[in-house]
Amino acid sequence: MTPEEFRAAGYDLIDLIADYLEGVDQRRVVPDISPGDVRAMLPERPPAAPESWSQVRADVDRVVLPTLSHWQHPNWFAYFPANTTYSSILGELLSAGLGVQGMSWVTSPACTEIETLMLDWMLELLDLPDRFRSTSEHGGGVIQGSASEATLVAILAARWRATGGAVNADGDTTKLVAYTTSQAHSSIEKGLRIAGVGTYRLRIVDHLDDTFAMRPASLAAAVAADLAAGLTPFFVCSTHGTTSSMAFDPTTDIAEVCERHDLWLHVDGAMSGIAALTPEFRWVNDGLDRADSYCTNPHKWMGVNFDCTLFWTADRRALLGALSILPEYLRSAAAESGAAIDYRDWQVPLGRRFRALKLWFNLRLDGVGSAQERIRRDVGLTDELARWVANDDRFEIVAPHPLNLVCLRLAGQLNEVTDELIDTVNAAGEFHVTRTVLDGVSALRVSVGSRTTEREHVARLWAELQRIARLLVPDEDDTGELRLGI
Amino acid sequence: MTPEEFRAAGYDLIDLIADYLEGVDQRRVVPDISPGDVRAMLPERPPAAPESWSQVRADVDRVVLPTLSHWQHPNWFAYFPANTTYSSILGELLSAGLGVQGMSWVTSPACTEIETLMLDWMLELLDLPDRFRSTSEHGGGVIQGSASEATLVAILAARWRATGGAVNADGDTTKLVAYTTSQAHSSIEKGLRIAGVGTYRLRIVDHLDDTFAMRPASLAAAVAADLAAGLTPFFVCSTHGTTSSMAFDPTTDIAEVCERHDLWLHVDGAMSGIAALTPEFRWVNDGLDRADSYCTNPHKWMGVNFDCTLFWTADRRALLGALSILPEYLRSAAAESGAAIDYRDWQVPLGRRFRALKLWFNLRLDGVGSAQERIRRDVGLTDELARWVANDDRFEIVAPHPLNLVCLRLAGQLNEVTDELIDTVNAAGEFHVTRTVLDGVSALRVSVGSRTTEREHVARLWAELQRIARLLVPDEDDTGELRLGI
Repeated sequence: MTPEEFRAAGYDLIDLIADYLEGVDQRRVVPDISPGDVRAMLPERPPAAPESWSQVRADVDRVVLPTLSHWQHPNWFAYFPANTTYSSILGELLSAGLGVQGMSWVTSPACTEIETLMLDWMLELLDLPDRFRSTSEHGGGVIQGSASEATLVAILAARWRATGGAVNADGDTTKLVAYTTSQAHSSIEKGLRIAGVGTYRLRIVDHLDDTFAMRPASLAAAVAADLAAGLTPFFVCSTHGTTSSMAFDPTTDIAEVCERHDLWLHVDGAMSGIAALTPEFRWVNDGLDRADSYCTNPHKWMGVNFDCTLFWTADRRALLGALSILPEYLRSAAAESGAAIDYRDWQVPLGRRFRALKLWFNLRLDGVGSAQERIRRDVGLTDELARWVANDDRFEIVAPHPLNLVCLRLAGQLNEVTDELIDTVNAAGEFHVTRTVLDGVSALRVSVGSRTTEREHVARLWAELQRIARLLVPDEDDTGELRLGI
Repeated sequence: MTPEEFRAAGYDLIDLIADYLEGVDQRRVVPDISPGDVRAMLPERPPAAPESWSQVRADVDRVVLPTLSHWQHPNWFAYFPANTTYSSILGELLSAGLGVQGMSWVTSPACTEIETLMLDWMLELLDLPDRFRSTSEHGGGVIQGSASEATLVAILAARWRATGGAVNADGDTTKLVAYTTSQAHSSIEKGLRIAGVGTYRLRIVDHLDDTFAMRPASLAAAVAADLAAGLTPFFVCSTHGTTSSMAFDPTTDIAEVCERHDLWLHVDGAMSGIAALTPEFRWVNDGLDRADSYCTNPHKWMGVNFDCTLFWTADRRALLGALSILPEYLRSAAAESGAAIDYRDWQVPLGRRFRALKLWFNLRLDGVGSAQERIRRDVGLTDELARWVANDDRFEIVAPHPLNLVCLRLAGQLNEVTDELIDTVNAAGEFHVTRTVLDGVSALRVSVGSRTTEREHVARLWAELQRIARLLVPDEDDTGELRLGI
């Protein structure tokens, strides 16, 4: 592909993206296809000769766009929307175009230093504690590819600290015990498993029945029992906004227990931490001043396209102790002097893209005000939806809704009826929601966080939920109406 | 940022990238700056209000471009060039624009199925064994973010298989032993450390003095000794193209040992495996038909911009056993039926970008012929450089150069003289090379693999190396000439 062909195709692709994002609401949210359908639309063998941009572009229109699940759709109420914004798309484009590797300062100074600056900017915008600032004595931040990776490096740093570094040599994790609740993200269990802390040594601490938040007294009791058994408690994950119901664990009380026994306290704010961009929601930071590490995802609410997880630690010595490996071909004078940060030692992979560009572009071109507006809009819409639900006897809300997630079910019905509500609303292709189970109770999650979602979309979803509910659970005086399902 | 502002800025950025890549040879390869210089050029605090594209673009020109290390520069002979191509930049742009999450089939069918197809296309283009094909009984492939992550998941699959899955529950890794040579990439040790196999249980197997390739007899002896000691050998990493000197371990002979004791055999072809796109270099695949897993990096020689590591396994059951975690909100009918692949269970993170697009675009817009031409060109230039070096008594070549890497030093001199040669050639900013140490001997690595490198660039580097060598090591009949260094 020549530079001139690239320019022409590039302009065309920029237009395609703008057209796609502006028109995505005209599409089904999730395609009506079966496994294998996409592959069947494409040649089984690679092309023998180069093709033109117009041929490739035609396949984007014919094959790709109709077989996506459209995460940028205004009726995407599933998971937590992984938003993209025009500004961050440009940042990702520049990162790809420059093609630099930021594994160490010397391999690309701009990549490293702009990343450090962005972490400090975000620390200020989120009003995070100074102990995480890059210029503090032992703290600092880095962009990870996902919250799963952030969790894993937190576990590894904790493991290193709890063993005095011995784990790097002896690999002995057989006494280490970790603590979280059943509401924590699956990546906690996955990260622990990777680090050699299997399910036998992951304590699922009790949570409160109504808020799904960890009970600190249960944590203290579990830690005491493990100490008495000769084990080594080392890691606690407190979640600020669980995936299932957006529960907030009481980090300040949890920190009491952690400090008493020198446990690493990681706070997972992947889903909800970005709310702190807005002063009235700064309570999501409660307790962070006593955490050893923290992560949150601009690639969710803030709209900096995936992958962009911010990870901070107050103890970079433990992180570097866990992750530094230094062969000859990676040494540099800048790093050895201590003046420069080599981010390869802050993460699992060696290579790294210039991800700071998309955050930088977003903060400059859209401004933090744009994210604040969306956060306020989404919390407002969620509150409004929750009021509608509360006023309809057919439904009940099964968890608090402190920000932009409502979990609801059909009141007084078996789980299967709510499951059928979920399947029915999804099957039509106009909306997409996800299911969760809270202490054995099926719930429909409505996550209001897509960049393009407005009041009309939430109102239409609610009307559709009501329509299906009337079919599934007719009023006693309803007669002759079709009753779906069980 | 409005759609119209995005279009205008997008066109401008496409032009900026083309101008940058076409003119990068006019820049210093590595900037002459110190840690902190980049940050000092930028405001310490985030902007209070949105800025215009022209302001941001001006800072790209003023701050970013002058403070990068230019990996796309034709005089970049360091590490292994992490190439980008116009076609793959467009693929990355589309991925950012669509903003979908491919963690499971249902969350974006196109993202999953095109990735599976690309792995099968690449399997055919590289002529890899059928046991890795997605349609084989137990095999399959996936795009990982880096070879480090590919290595880690191979280790985790091996750990799961060696313990019959028990490690997921008991986390006991204290008997597991792994094997590789001192020439293996640092990510092997890092991955093992993460997985709870510390340096005490990583055996550094002897290598041959002249080729730096593993001695299979030493591997067999080490495994026997560990078995006799009651330990559990479980993982061997054989490298096809080491980072330091591009050594090739004898995988077929290593496989004999692995099969005898049911050890997981991972082959790390990160750097050199892409050479198999060219039929005359298919020998780089020797032994892969007996490997449990394999990785290679299109983001190096092939020019599919980072991150794009291809990872195949012949035993996806072990991979899924190691990495599957299934909470309610991630379940889907498509996955439970077994008809669909959920790639979240093939990797460490949960989220994943639509990385297959850049590989698809590259193979269609540039065609495999383009990569084949570059591979042949670079191996030819390397052979030519090696002949020049061999014909100059001041220099010696310290390792075989089977493909596109030459390791050289100043003959008969102390290491410090070669180190000074490296520092001097790098200091001027016209070229960038890296240093390595091979069995205690300092060497200058010349890695010929940048997309834009032509004969003239290699010739100028060689002239510069000769010029500096004359200063560092004058001929006996030289008089009065400046002598640099020690």
